[in-house]
Amino acid sequence: MKIAIISTIVASALMAATPLMQDAKKAGLMPIPSKQKELNKLIDNPKNPITAAKVELGKKLFFDARLSKSGLISCNTCHNLATGGVDGVDAAVGHKWTSNPHHLNSPTVYNAVFFSSQFWDGRSANLENQAQGPIQAAPEMAATPEHIVSVVTSMPEYVAEFKKAYGNKTITFELVADTIATFERTLVTPASYDKFLQGNDKALNTQQKKGLKTFIDLGCTSCHTGVALGGEMQAFGVAAPYKYAHIGDFKGNANAMVKVPTLRNITQTAPYFHNGAVATLKEAIQEMGRIQLGTTVSDEQAADIAEFFKALNGKKPSVSYPQLPACSATTPKPDIN
Amino acid sequence: MKIAIISTIVASALMAATPLMQDAKKAGLMPIPSKQKELNKLIDNPKNPITAAKVELGKKLFFDARLSKSGLISCNTCHNLATGGVDGVDAAVGHKWTSNPHHLNSPTVYNAVFFSSQFWDGRSANLENQAQGPIQAAPEMAATPEHIVSVVTSMPEYVAEFKKAYGNKTITFELVADTIATFERTLVTPASYDKFLQGNDKALNTQQKKGLKTFIDLGCTSCHTGVALGGEMQAFGVAAPYKYAHIGDFKGNANAMVKVPTLRNITQTAPYFHNGAVATLKEAIQEMGRIQLGTTVSDEQAADIAEFFKALNGKKPSVSYPQLPACSATTPKPDIN
Repeated sequence: MKIAIISTIVASALMAATPLMQDAKKAGLMPIPSKQKELNKLIDNPKNPITAAKVELGKKLFFDARLSKSGLISCNTCHNLATGGVDGVDAAVGHKWTSNPHHLNSPTVYNAVFFSSQFWDGRSANLENQAQGPIQAAPEMAATPEHIVSVVTSMPEYVAEFKKAYGNKTITFELVADTIATFERTLVTPASYDKFLQGNDKALNTQQKKGLKTFIDLGCTSCHTGVALGGEMQAFGVAAPYKYAHIGDFKGNANAMVKVPTLRNITQTAPYFHNGAVATLKEAIQEMGRIQLGTTVSDEQAADIAEFFKALNGKKPSVSYPQLPACSATTPKPDIN
Repeated sequence: MKIAIISTIVASALMAATPLMQDAKKAGLMPIPSKQKELNKLIDNPKNPITAAKVELGKKLFFDARLSKSGLISCNTCHNLATGGVDGVDAAVGHKWTSNPHHLNSPTVYNAVFFSSQFWDGRSANLENQAQGPIQAAPEMAATPEHIVSVVTSMPEYVAEFKKAYGNKTITFELVADTIATFERTLVTPASYDKFLQGNDKALNTQQKKGLKTFIDLGCTSCHTGVALGGEMQAFGVAAPYKYAHIGDFKGNANAMVKVPTLRNITQTAPYFHNGAVATLKEAIQEMGRIQLGTTVSDEQAADIAEFFKALNGKKPSVSYPQLPACSATTPKPDIN
């Protein structure tokens, strides 16, 4: 009885929101829910509900380089789950070693489920639609929808797994993309930051709290907010022009809007910005202050914010490396040209 | 008591070697030992003993594309553990999308520990030495030893893991290769074939037994023998010239010797031969009969042997996809040129 009362007191103390927690909440910052049921509300797609069978199959397809024209490039090549969900180069390199012609940096796939739109120019509404893009893009996986369907349906094990996941639904290119997206929906990375937002004041160290306060006070949360601390479209270079290239150097849209990248796991996803031109977090933070907020972020402020960012490094889902079905006689041959 | 006696009788029945098992043994075919202690005798390197810390670190390095000049190519790119330990293309494609200039097919890394030499021309005595090759090769990972050491030592987590694995030993390029090799030494894939050799007559189906008998009777075991059913150097094209290209099209050695590829997991590692010119097992089996044994392998014989090969598909070690250390400020930047 005594223990139960003490536990309740401790729990209450932990749950009492500090002023910083309240400020964070006011600024729209939201944790990744710790309860699976609440999380599911955020990550599930009612039109394509998450099931264990789809996730397992989606993982295989995510790692299967045979979906690409060359047989050498998988989703994981650019969105590498071992390195923060990115490839570490400034612009994606794909089929025939072609750099992305708009010189666009591969965004992380971790927590991408929380974005309100996908791609730097936000042209895609969800992961299901997004997954169709790089598979077909000539400088990325360079595959046709017909190629994808041929590859997948040529392997009886894949056909059986689709049947398990979807019943008798026809295997189409769109269904393959949907399945990959279902796997991606599970790639969320709760961090000590989330524990803080959920009421555990000890989950951030002193400098991280100072950094979070600065982050809110400077107005960074006007764009980097929500669960992902990003993922919405925003005008870019509003206070001053971007130092390294104009936003017009990729399609974007008419209003020079660009998708705000998530800050979760940001210490693992250098280089930064849509064109990967900025190597360090310090420069990224200060450049953002200058061109978005019209303010000078001091070295000390930048260091505090960068320290806060460490609390955004989350626990990655454990992923067993898949054993993929073997090719059959009818599997299309890889074409590296 | 009764159950114990029956179990003993059943076990004895299982262990009684059939004539085919005896023939296989006479032909030098050997199982992957089922007892870890016996297996260790075959896979361990007394100069670089296998430890859990080395294997875990070696796995990370095996998957770490940042070891390459571009930051995009890992050991796993060509020796993909998801697809039988190979890349599925006829000749390896590496840095700047360069095909191997000698047009050599990437051999599987699974069970490579059982080979008496490494590379198609057998120029390397063991996995430790082999691992140094592709990392440096200009058309593969294109890295210098200095680059490798810089990358690894730039990340405190890697430095700590090396300390855990090796104490205060200096981190050299050779030590990185040794560590990758230690992981590779664990990549063995016991199959139903091994159970058969160990005395379980039911582990092969009737056609597989017929295929194994044909395989032995035709003399395939004169090269494809031992634990790996391959891995030794042999003269190539002894009865007739190879249909697709002369062996002299890669360095090889003066006597046109080529390493006999393992047949374990062979249904998963097409295309076949050193230059990846043969797409199907049927053609590979018949071409081998023609150029190595000077005999015509009938379609029925080839089908039986191919069916036997299915029993060589082994259980792959379960590999959790690693979370790699994040780059630090001193990590060399990827260079895709």
